[in-house]
Parts: sequence; C-alpha cells; structure tokens
Amino acid sequence: MLYLITSNLNKFKEATLVLDEFGLTLQHLPIKKMEIQADDLQEISEHAAKVILEQYDKEILVEDAGLFIDTLNGFPGPYSSYVYRTVGCEGILDLLKDETKRIASFKAVLSYGRPEKGIISFLGETKGQIVKSIRGSGGFGFDPIFIPNGSDKTFAEMSISQKNQFSHRMRALKRFAEWYIQHTP
Amino acid sequence: MLYLITSNLNKFKEATLVLDEFGLTLQHLPIKKMEIQADDLQEISEHAAKVILEQYDKEILVEDAGLFIDTLNGFPGPYSSYVYRTVGCEGILDLLKDETKRIASFKAVLSYGRPEKGIISFLGETKGQIVKSIRGSGGFGFDPIFIPNGSDKTFAEMSISQKNQFSHRMRALKRFAEWYIQHTP
Repeated sequence: MLYLITSNLNKFKEATLVLDEFGLTLQHLPIKKMEIQADDLQEISEHAAKVILEQYDKEILVEDAGLFIDTLNGFPGPYSSYVYRTVGCEGILDLLKDETKRIASFKAVLSYGRPEKGIISFLGETKGQIVKSIRGSGGFGFDPIFIPNGSDKTFAEMSISQKNQFSHRMRALKRFAEWYIQHTP
Repeated sequence: MLYLITSNLNKFKEATLVLDEFGLTLQHLPIKKMEIQADDLQEISEHAAKVILEQYDKEILVEDAGLFIDTLNGFPGPYSSYVYRTVGCEGILDLLKDETKRIASFKAVLSYGRPEKGIISFLGETKGQIVKSIRGSGGFGFDPIFIPNGSDKTFAEMSISQKNQFSHRMRALKRFAEWYIQHTP
C-alpha cells in the first residue's frame, strides 16, 4: 500500500487520478512533513522522506513542488507555499510589473521510500509563462497566474484532468509509476 | 568558550562587539546550519542548535533572524535570506508600491546550548518602518530599507556600533549575556 504524505488535499486528488491510470491505489497520510530550508527541492523532499521513514513502517511518497520564475532568480522556488500564504498571486504580479520576460517553471520532486530500502526521487517540470492578471479559480497556490507551454489556459482555468495533462506533478508521478511497476513484483 | 554558528561574517562582527561589552569572548564556527521551514524563528533556531549539539562538544550559539512586514502578513519573515538573494531590496519595495502603511519588525532569536544541557532561547525585536527607496551601503540583507523607531537613518547608513544601539540582534544578545553571566559560575 502506497501512502502520499501531504497536508494538501488538492495534491492528493491530482496524484490519485494520475496513479489510477497505472492501476496504482494511493492512500493519504495527512501528517505535516518536516521541511528543511534549501534551494533544491530534491534535498527538501528526500530529507522529509527520511524523517518519515524513521517513524512509519510503510511505503511512502513525499512530494515537494515550487514555481521558479526566471527573471526573479528562481523566486519563490522552494518557498512557494509560504510566499503564496503571505503575498499571494498579487505579490508575484507586483514583482514582475511591466516585465516582458515572464518565463517560469513549475517543478515537482517525488521521493519514494520504503523501510530498510533507500529513497529514490523522480522529477517533473513544466515550462510556461506568468500571465499579467489572475485567471481562473481552480487548482491551488500559484495556478491562477501560470500558463503551461502548449495551452492558452492557466492551471486554475483547467479541470483536474486537464491540468494533469500538463502538470509538473503528473510528470513526476508518471516517472515514478513506470519505475514502480517495473521494480515491484 | 562560546561558539557562534553562522556563515554570515557580518552577524559574527555585530555579535562580537555586543558580547565584548559583557566581557564575553566569541569564537566563530563557520558551518552551514540545518534550517527547517517554519513560520516561527524560535522553532528554526532551536532545531538547528539541537542538530549541531549532536555533532559538536561545545557551547554554541545559533541565531535566526528575519524582517517581518505587517501589510505583507509577515513576509519575508523566516525566509528573509532567500528572498534577499532572489528579489532583493527592490523586490520588497515593489511589493509595497504606494502602500502608506510600512510598519515592520526585525526579529532575532538566539539559541544557546551546551552538551547534555537543554537549549534556551533569547528574543530580540526592533520595530520600525520600510523606507521608499534604498539608502546606505553598510550592514547586510534588508538593512538599506529599514529605519528603526527612534532613528532617521536606515541600518545600512549606520556604523556597526550605531546599528548595535538599535538592533534586534543586539537585544537578543544582551538578554543572553545577562542570563549567561548570572548562570555560569
């Protein structure tokens, strides 16, 4: 049985839909994961997985994700959740003001671990653009200001299954699922 | 012998001057401390102290500090160092734009620990205002945009000893020094 560690129900819903396509069932373990301060998502995600594995005798998945904006040197990056809670989408738009270069990436790292085995991580990245004003009410976090390349909708203007065709989280989950199916008897 | 754990030489210089007034000598242990993601400086500082105490058989001081801006819900707070490295002082000024309410606090938490004893923390806070444009080249981080109450200069327009008359770090260090002198034979 696979447990996703997250306090974000939206993440759990998105992940459930993706893994279902691979015939994998996901359970929810709604505990607060320990997150370290680091510029690298994989370092944060793997550290969290390690701490949880010391406490739970289960197969676990931990995910860390963030929005990395090129002209802001990667801000808000690994601190996206905090930045969203404090200055929000409006804050990001203020920081970009009349900026014409609005390239950004959503990145996700998914770390899988099981007791007495190592931890292995899977990366997913979606490139796109930051829009000029907030659009849509779906999704969560910075979804209303991000349009993935290949679409003209923000993540917040999409249904979960539409977002899952483009999203960084889906890409990390697919990589994990393909590996998992091959490596589990 | 007291060791201050910091990778920031400016912090070490400021702390050395303050503790010298109490006859205390500070050594520098320039290692990278482990920082967790939390909204509370004390949680971050004490966790770092705990991890370091497990590795070093020394009396240690760990400090965590941040700039908390009222109208930005405390942003950048515990992530001040990352926010400074990515969007800088200009980013904060962009976020405040034409905002007239510019109240902010610099906060510092100093955690003292020694092997086989507990960890104890000391808080320092300095209230002030965010200016409308960058002023001064001294100090570090967000010093050029912060004027402490009772002064008309930003921290970056002050010498170290002037800044030490007002600073959050000085206040935490003084509280520590007074306690330390009383409790150490």
